[in-house]
Amino acid sequence: LQENIRTAFSKFTNFTDTEWLDFSECFKTKHYKKGEYFIKEQAHCNYVGFIVKGLFNYYYLIDGVQHTRQFFFAHNFISDYSSFLLSRKSKAYIQALEDSSVILIHKNDLAIHYEKIPKIQKLGRKMAEYLYIIVSEKYESFLLKTAEERYLELIKSRPKVIKHIPQYMIASYLGITPEGLSRIRKRIAKK
Amino acid sequence: LQENIRTAFSKFTNFTDTEWLDFSECFKTKHYKKGEYFIKEQAHCNYVGFIVKGLFNYYYLIDGVQHTRQFFFAHNFISDYSSFLLSRKSKAYIQALEDSSVILIHKNDLAIHYEKIPKIQKLGRKMAEYLYIIVSEKYESFLLKTAEERYLELIKSRPKVIKHIPQYMIASYLGITPEGLSRIRKRIAKK
Repeated sequence: LQENIRTAFSKFTNFTDTEWLDFSECFKTKHYKKGEYFIKEQAHCNYVGFIVKGLFNYYYLIDGVQHTRQFFFAHNFISDYSSFLLSRKSKAYIQALEDSSVILIHKNDLAIHYEKIPKIQKLGRKMAEYLYIIVSEKYESFLLKTAEERYLELIKSRPKVIKHIPQYMIASYLGITPEGLSRIRKRIAKK
Repeated sequence: LQENIRTAFSKFTNFTDTEWLDFSECFKTKHYKKGEYFIKEQAHCNYVGFIVKGLFNYYYLIDGVQHTRQFFFAHNFISDYSSFLLSRKSKAYIQALEDSSVILIHKNDLAIHYEKIPKIQKLGRKMAEYLYIIVSEKYESFLLKTAEERYLELIKSRPKVIKHIPQYMIASYLGITPEGLSRIRKRIAKK
């Protein structure tokens, strides 16, 4: 397992054996059963996670209705990063959609390792850039695209989403009702 | 000027004289007259800018109507960072709202200096984290707050916005019509 994780992290920056040993000492592996939460509204998000296996739904709850911001798959970082960076309460929920395993890094440990092993700054940069791109794309897609365009984009760029996630959650991600999604799917099927 | 900029950058990371001399060699200072563009839709955003003085409007144009994503003030980084990071065309406009000066760093220069001076990774991390927080907050605020709450938040957190920016642009930032903003202002004045 450790070797797999090291390979995954080497996408971001290369560690020497000593550096990796030092850094990985602060990793905590946590298992989430389907339905369990990485973070809930009003809690402080003190961890950044690296999903080893599984799938998470990052959503807001408004008047009892879930509004999905993003789905996160294996080998991606996950966090309410504003809450993490600004040390304030989360406004979101991040919930496991299937049994999942995550490597957790506490923000104090990350801060220590940033100073101790300078190349972890690069990992931190890549992490922030990745999370930036994800949310910025979502913002642009809501502003500039129709629900149908967003759905076609999703099928193309994230076929896994389609496969693993219930339709009503995909509808929530697209910002439409399940009925709206059903109409879009029928329209596409006819083309 | 260089000393001011060095002080501003020292918020993010501390440079030795040699490092600063090396890094700052790739800075290009560009002056924008009011109305000029840092980036336009369909162009590649190859620079990250650090605003020395001035004010910029980061907006999308939809059916001829401006939708402001964010205003950027002096001593902040500015870029269409998705376009910058992913080397693809911008979907946005970034326009000077007053005569402005910006330090530009080309992405190739930044990439070279990331490897040459490791602590610039920290600067890059801080830059990405800042841009992440800005867009993530905007996303949450649109989803979770009313226009009136967004306006009150803006007055509190960014009094400069209120002072320097025409009302119709503030309305665009808030996602409402100028008439809607006018009604909100009257309602607040009565309280």
